[in-house]
Amino acid sequence: MKNIITAFCLTLTLSACNTTDNQANTTQVTNTSTQPQKHLPKNIIMVVGDGMGPAYTTAYRYYNDDPNTPAIEETVFDRHLLGMSNTYPARVSGYVTDSAASATALSTGVKSYNGAIGLDVNKQPVQTVLEWAKLQGKKTGVVVTSQVNHATPASYLAHNESRRNYNAIADSYIDDGIKADVILGGGWEYFIREDRNLVDEFSVKGFHYIDNYSALATLPENKPVLGLFADIGLPWSLDDTDKNRLSTMTKAAIKQLENPQGYFMLVEASQVDWAGHSNDVAAAMSEMDDLSQTMLYLENYVENNPDTLVILTADHSTGGFTIAANGVYEWNPEILRSMKHSPSSIAKQLAKNDITATEASDLFNFTLTDQELIKLQQSKYNASEQTAAYYSASKEQQKSMSKPRISAALYEIVKQIIDARTNTGWTSYGHTAVDVPVFALGQHSEMFGGNIDNTDIANKIFTLLGKPAQ
Amino acid sequence: MKNIITAFCLTLTLSACNTTDNQANTTQVTNTSTQPQKHLPKNIIMVVGDGMGPAYTTAYRYYNDDPNTPAIEETVFDRHLLGMSNTYPARVSGYVTDSAASATALSTGVKSYNGAIGLDVNKQPVQTVLEWAKLQGKKTGVVVTSQVNHATPASYLAHNESRRNYNAIADSYIDDGIKADVILGGGWEYFIREDRNLVDEFSVKGFHYIDNYSALATLPENKPVLGLFADIGLPWSLDDTDKNRLSTMTKAAIKQLENPQGYFMLVEASQVDWAGHSNDVAAAMSEMDDLSQTMLYLENYVENNPDTLVILTADHSTGGFTIAANGVYEWNPEILRSMKHSPSSIAKQLAKNDITATEASDLFNFTLTDQELIKLQQSKYNASEQTAAYYSASKEQQKSMSKPRISAALYEIVKQIIDARTNTGWTSYGHTAVDVPVFALGQHSEMFGGNIDNTDIANKIFTLLGKPAQ
Repeated sequence: MKNIITAFCLTLTLSACNTTDNQANTTQVTNTSTQPQKHLPKNIIMVVGDGMGPAYTTAYRYYNDDPNTPAIEETVFDRHLLGMSNTYPARVSGYVTDSAASATALSTGVKSYNGAIGLDVNKQPVQTVLEWAKLQGKKTGVVVTSQVNHATPASYLAHNESRRNYNAIADSYIDDGIKADVILGGGWEYFIREDRNLVDEFSVKGFHYIDNYSALATLPENKPVLGLFADIGLPWSLDDTDKNRLSTMTKAAIKQLENPQGYFMLVEASQVDWAGHSNDVAAAMSEMDDLSQTMLYLENYVENNPDTLVILTADHSTGGFTIAANGVYEWNPEILRSMKHSPSSIAKQLAKNDITATEASDLFNFTLTDQELIKLQQSKYNASEQTAAYYSASKEQQKSMSKPRISAALYEIVKQIIDARTNTGWTSYGHTAVDVPVFALGQHSEMFGGNIDNTDIANKIFTLLGKPAQ
Repeated sequence: MKNIITAFCLTLTLSACNTTDNQANTTQVTNTSTQPQKHLPKNIIMVVGDGMGPAYTTAYRYYNDDPNTPAIEETVFDRHLLGMSNTYPARVSGYVTDSAASATALSTGVKSYNGAIGLDVNKQPVQTVLEWAKLQGKKTGVVVTSQVNHATPASYLAHNESRRNYNAIADSYIDDGIKADVILGGGWEYFIREDRNLVDEFSVKGFHYIDNYSALATLPENKPVLGLFADIGLPWSLDDTDKNRLSTMTKAAIKQLENPQGYFMLVEASQVDWAGHSNDVAAAMSEMDDLSQTMLYLENYVENNPDTLVILTADHSTGGFTIAANGVYEWNPEILRSMKHSPSSIAKQLAKNDITATEASDLFNFTLTDQELIKLQQSKYNASEQTAAYYSASKEQQKSMSKPRISAALYEIVKQIIDARTNTGWTSYGHTAVDVPVFALGQHSEMFGGNIDNTDIANKIFTLLGKPAQ
């Protein structure tokens, strides 16, 4: 098999071609063609499910299952799984990566320290696949559900010693030369500031600016686009005016990016990770559903545009999410399928209104037990008492008290109710180091099979963008 | 790629051949050859890492890493990963499988209810790949670190409505006709009973019986072998006289099974799962190391015997094991690499002897902090008090008390110390439903790529054993 695939690769005169036979992964096939470009994908779409470890794609299968059919329905992820990726950062940061180091690995092919944006361990900038694609005359785009200057998109567009330098990263999107033709996501807080209005600056540079999803339907042809739709990240998919906003943005971006030279685009389901950090399985499944809709669209797009390559992976897993917990051999996603509001939004509503059986059941979209209701009421009562004590205290006394938030206390209880009903487990509010699944479809997707390091995903993309081996 | 692999499969006149391009997974290639057998693997070795979810193989990479080298060393698992497997049982048992239903799926190609041994949901027996291989004239074997009548080996050798019917399952190994030429693992308790001595019965049927590892080196040629080395399961790898007993048993079994017609063998690293159930990361990594040594041996064996196919997967994941926990971005396996005794064995020693700094540090093989030492001493004191209270109570009073075990109390503290030092997380003493990795090497290993259902692993093995499609 290895020999046949190698022969196939040679026929196509690819500068490197690996097989899903992992033993062949180190095969280096020299570029012997004078015209390699025509065999390379015209368009490359890199999709990142931030925090989407293997438990997320598996759980989504069961969340997505129709219990009224005999079989469990295959997901779009099931159809395109090719292997798994290591996520560990540079040795200096141990075995557990953050989103900056792992996005830098995916964007540059270089392992770096946790926190690094497009820099190596010596804090030197490293070219990203997006930058290389731009230099080759391709259009480029980033489409995310976080702020557009968050760790993952920043690692494709910027170089900064810390992911936390949000304003500096946003500034660099202009100051280092604009690298993307389409930028869609959240981020008003960083782009429209008292000291600087980057939206105006993008407009001066010829960008069409939009600030609502409906404007995505009527973008002007052949004009670069900056779309910012929220202060920081977009609302949870469950609460957003467009629950499939990642898919909506992706469709619009592709329309804008299509051109004879092709394009490179980063798409990120950023908030799978945020749901993981919050240990919020309802938000996680809804964000996964938005990603699934996006992948279904891309599956159809690749069908019609076979010169496109789509790769999907995660940068790491988040939250230590487990499907079943507490010794019980069950995972019950039924209630998740019918939820209409995110747990944090439910908590905010319960903080404002009286917690009655009707109100609570309306918000959850399932009937709460008396015990669950009492737990919510008790939590609100306790948090209210703490709030009263806080605001009746002197300014001096307040300094030694933590500022209570009723909705935050209720959010914990809402999640406890959902975790208990679904039998979901968590071990952390941070990341875990489990290998993550890798999916690919379209031209040369076979190169992404088997066990693969996150840096090799970038290296293979560089190859497919015609970059000569270093 | 799909077409090329299909053409390749047709050339080999396989009765069915799937590609690692998951879209091609449903391709049915009709058997058009009059002599298909010569293109099928001569030997098939099915290896199961019981409970070995993706966190286990990933964690093993970091456990196995030499921190003194710049790169993280590739494991034998990394070299042969091809995809992932679904593990869910028949719908009647929900989404989270037990070891019996999943082993039945892997052995028969049929989803069943949790607890089923080689039966379908209607409790009807289903032919296993081992039984079919035997009918084709191949030799067969099972090599496990559990008792040989535990769920996984039983699902290849027996048909019983409940995995808990240990004696009945052991009896059936004789009563239903002996199906294996080599049976190695634990199980005296079930094979040498007051009511029946199955060891004697196996001897009467011509089996060579051994009860210690050293006898594996001098097995008589061409004689079937029953090797039982423990009452129930073998000791933890960390405590066993041969820490690589799975690898030792596998080598001996292969030598015994090799013959012109080939063989089918099940090898199970049974106690990865037991370590998961115990939330014992030290035992888990040591069991993984025994499995890794076995896979390294098989890797070399396939190199020298390219007509052999080896498949490795897990039946499910166990314990909700996560690499990192509690919001900290670290996993520190250093202490695990140097441990010489299992946590349960350490606990037993600490229960018997005085808990001094020297005694404890000798047992753990690292120096305990004062706080860790005090925690152990306090736990022993509390458990001793409870024990004294229990034994000074009347028989009547004892009925309402749980019988205290000092070593059990200490085992919990030993694991807490190790989890805190390594930053390991757990969510359950049971199973979780995350998809599990699939590895394969050797002849036609490419058939096991992409996303694959556990039943399809059996179905592909049936195909490779020449069984006509149903």
